[in-house]
Amino acid sequence: MVPSMRFPSLISVCLLFALAAKSSFAETADTPPAAFRQGARVLFQGDSITDGARDRAGKYQDHLLGHGYPFLIAANYGGHFPERKLVFLNRGVSGNKVSDLAARWKQDTIALKPDVLSILIGVNDVWHNLAGNKEIKYAEIEAAYDKLITDAKVAQPNVKIVLCEPFILPGPVTKPRWKEWEAAVKKIQQIVARLGTKHHLPVAHFQKVFDDAQQRTPAEEWLFDGVHPCYAGHQLMADEWVRTVKEAWPN
Amino acid sequence: MVPSMRFPSLISVCLLFALAAKSSFAETADTPPAAFRQGARVLFQGDSITDGARDRAGKYQDHLLGHGYPFLIAANYGGHFPERKLVFLNRGVSGNKVSDLAARWKQDTIALKPDVLSILIGVNDVWHNLAGNKEIKYAEIEAAYDKLITDAKVAQPNVKIVLCEPFILPGPVTKPRWKEWEAAVKKIQQIVARLGTKHHLPVAHFQKVFDDAQQRTPAEEWLFDGVHPCYAGHQLMADEWVRTVKEAWPN
Repeated sequence: MVPSMRFPSLISVCLLFALAAKSSFAETADTPPAAFRQGARVLFQGDSITDGARDRAGKYQDHLLGHGYPFLIAANYGGHFPERKLVFLNRGVSGNKVSDLAARWKQDTIALKPDVLSILIGVNDVWHNLAGNKEIKYAEIEAAYDKLITDAKVAQPNVKIVLCEPFILPGPVTKPRWKEWEAAVKKIQQIVARLGTKHHLPVAHFQKVFDDAQQRTPAEEWLFDGVHPCYAGHQLMADEWVRTVKEAWPN
Repeated sequence: MVPSMRFPSLISVCLLFALAAKSSFAETADTPPAAFRQGARVLFQGDSITDGARDRAGKYQDHLLGHGYPFLIAANYGGHFPERKLVFLNRGVSGNKVSDLAARWKQDTIALKPDVLSILIGVNDVWHNLAGNKEIKYAEIEAAYDKLITDAKVAQPNVKIVLCEPFILPGPVTKPRWKEWEAAVKKIQQIVARLGTKHHLPVAHFQKVFDDAQQRTPAEEWLFDGVHPCYAGHQLMADEWVRTVKEAWPN
């Protein structure tokens, strides 16, 4: 009797192992985030990194999502799970600071009724002020960013908001005044972290992603000017964004 | 002795099963095509579908690969395997026919010394001639396309050439004269198939991909005008392109 008792249990263990290996494939490669429910509207808000020179012209164009992480995420889940009827929207605008987002928040975010709202903003608050030798008003930035989140939640209480940390690496834009860049971007990252804690929102930690990446190959292969990602950098952003969203809303 | 003889063999079988499941993940999701060797130069040639409104401006920009399947392929393998130092190039030009590729073949293909060369051309040979009520000169198209391949192989005998079949679905552009479109595109597809056979080259069969896709969700969600892919369509192209390249050069 012993063998016949032990065979099935061994088979079960092996099958579980095989299934686990199989499901880990599905998890990481193919299953959409649970937040991407049937018909979910996924809106990417931000600056040039999100904008990606997206076409503003028309409906049904293939260039509406820009050349960047929103395109990678939309292509993957839109292409592989068409029956979900996911709607991907990009309203990133090149050059935007937090105050610019605030100025167009009503029509470009609230009116679009997103189910998932991704916000990546802040690097131009550093860039424009450093370039103009102006003081960076962190308290104002934090208050304005806070209001963006509050307004979005008031308008749509169930919206799932993903905060994205701004990031830099040494590059042509950032190297000449690297210490100032680094200190200022860190302060914006801290603002994003505080707002995440305050509003119970997940934060995509892109800085660590790029810090790790530049240990593998040179910084300019990820962020060609120290600020803007190359295609390889956009892939890392897409990966981290999806990981963050899956972790925040597992079901 | 029987149980102890049989246990190890059962364990081996189960482990093989588990490893197979594991390696199928790596194969499909992560391993680059073997053709993407260290430092490989991968060039995408074609028309607007390849062009994707790519930026012509400069080096190290994030928009050089356009919004399309080349960007998806480059982001995936460039982002996940940076140590391979893969070089992705896009020289698709919107509106191009086979004769336009021929006119710029020397500088835009030969001079770039690709290790992997992808060609997607032909739909404008149909479109422009139908629109102008002109005869489509298939024999000339085939001869010109044949010369593109021959010239590329003469210049670089080890180049791995991937032929991509042009494709359409019913949409705003194609519906009004669908029968003519379908018949003409089919003839170009047959040309591509013949050239594939003649030169022993793999063909990415995009038409079947989109025929299958429109069984899942409406045609315009894949090719918004019947000719150009949306982001979801570009993902299917990227998948099929990679599958074709892996199958053609498994080692």
